[in-house]
Amino acid sequence: MRSFTDYLWFETQHRRDYLNITPQVEECVHRSGISEGLCLVNAMHITASVYINDAEAGLLQDYDDWLEGLAPHEPVSHYRHNRTGEDNGDAHLKRQIMGREVVVAVTGGKLDFGPWEQIYYGEFDGRRRKRVLVKIIGE
Amino acid sequence: MRSFTDYLWFETQHRRDYLNITPQVEECVHRSGISEGLCLVNAMHITASVYINDAEAGLLQDYDDWLEGLAPHEPVSHYRHNRTGEDNGDAHLKRQIMGREVVVAVTGGKLDFGPWEQIYYGEFDGRRRKRVLVKIIGE
Amino acid sequence: MRSFTDYLWFETQHRRDYLNITPQVEECVHRSGISEGLCLVNAMHITASVYINDAEAGLLQDYDDWLEGLAPHEPVSHYRHNRTGEDNGDAHLKRQIMGREVVVAVTGGKLDFGPWEQIYYGEFDGRRRKRVLVKIIGE
Repeated sequence: MRSFTDYLWFETQHRRDYLNITPQVEECVHRSGISEGLCLVNAMHITASVYINDAEAGLLQDYDDWLEGLAPHEPVSHYRHNRTGEDNGDAHLKRQIMGREVVVAVTGGKLDFGPWEQIYYGEFDGRRRKRVLVKIIGE
Repeated sequence: MRSFTDYLWFETQHRRDYLNITPQVEECVHRSGISEGLCLVNAMHITASVYINDAEAGLLQDYDDWLEGLAPHEPVSHYRHNRTGEDNGDAHLKRQIMGREVVVAVTGGKLDFGPWEQIYYGEFDGRRRKRVLVKIIGE
Repeated sequence: MRSFTDYLWFETQHRRDYLNITPQVEECVHRSGISEGLCLVNAMHITASVYINDAEAGLLQDYDDWLEGLAPHEPVSHYRHNRTGEDNGDAHLKRQIMGREVVVAVTGGKLDFGPWEQIYYGEFDGRRRKRVLVKIIGE
């Protein structure tokens, strides 16, 4: 069995942002030399998500509006968590909807994707450097 | 290490549908010959989910009502994504609640399940052929 | 390839509860002797979650309030599932928001965590003994 580990760094310009990180993950798979296995990609911070969906600008805005409806950023006093001095209570909730991680099959040396699958980093409390972990095991 | 890959095809009669695919995944585990490992099952399309929950008809209807409340299909003009000519904006949101994938332990050659765990394919934009990937690695 | 399997038992005092199970999972990783691999942790019951987020008391209360807003326990007659004689229809919905499982990288013999990641057992229909599965594969 072989294994590969790498950490990708991101810093978004906005509090909330959605970055297509598929090329970086594909490069990890290539560098790993693994042809059959599983690839884990997860946010290492608890106010961000890694998820798989469509690379379509309208959809990204739909997600953002929807998440704001389900867990609004304001009023920040609405969240007990913010009594600790944070203002990111909403981000911890939004991240549970979108998920922490994806596990993708590696087949024939490539991410085994359906036609529209793209890996996204969803940031809900950005404007600082944060990490995503890529771990691949297989042969 | 051994690995196994297969693709299951589904075409639902309704726009939204919930199919118990546990028998097909169990057959994959059997065919893989793997006794200890991990089994990934994921929707390859971004308007469908694979999730684990109860095989109970009332619950399936509860899920459907709840998802329609959280992300209604209509009015289709509500979703920016639908300006691309699609009418499935809601389906991309519903799928994030229910999830893309499950990872199940394989122990003693079988899916290592609790008493009521069943693997479901949740379709939110059906009436066409779509794929589910099964990838098993282990020994 | 090596594999490790264990089952953790929990019984919460309240219907809904949130337990930090990171120490127990860390002990599994230690006992497994695996230094590079993947660690799956999943609820084996379909009215409970395993998720990763912050160990902060205010946030746990925020999650609980939010989940009650999205899928209220009462009136129990609201859920078709409860016509089977259960009163846990809401718990099956809450668990989908918080997720069934996490997959965590094992690197250098340890859970490869970001600074605040903690593994939680989220119980939505407690006061009875329930299991969590830990499966680790790697080398």
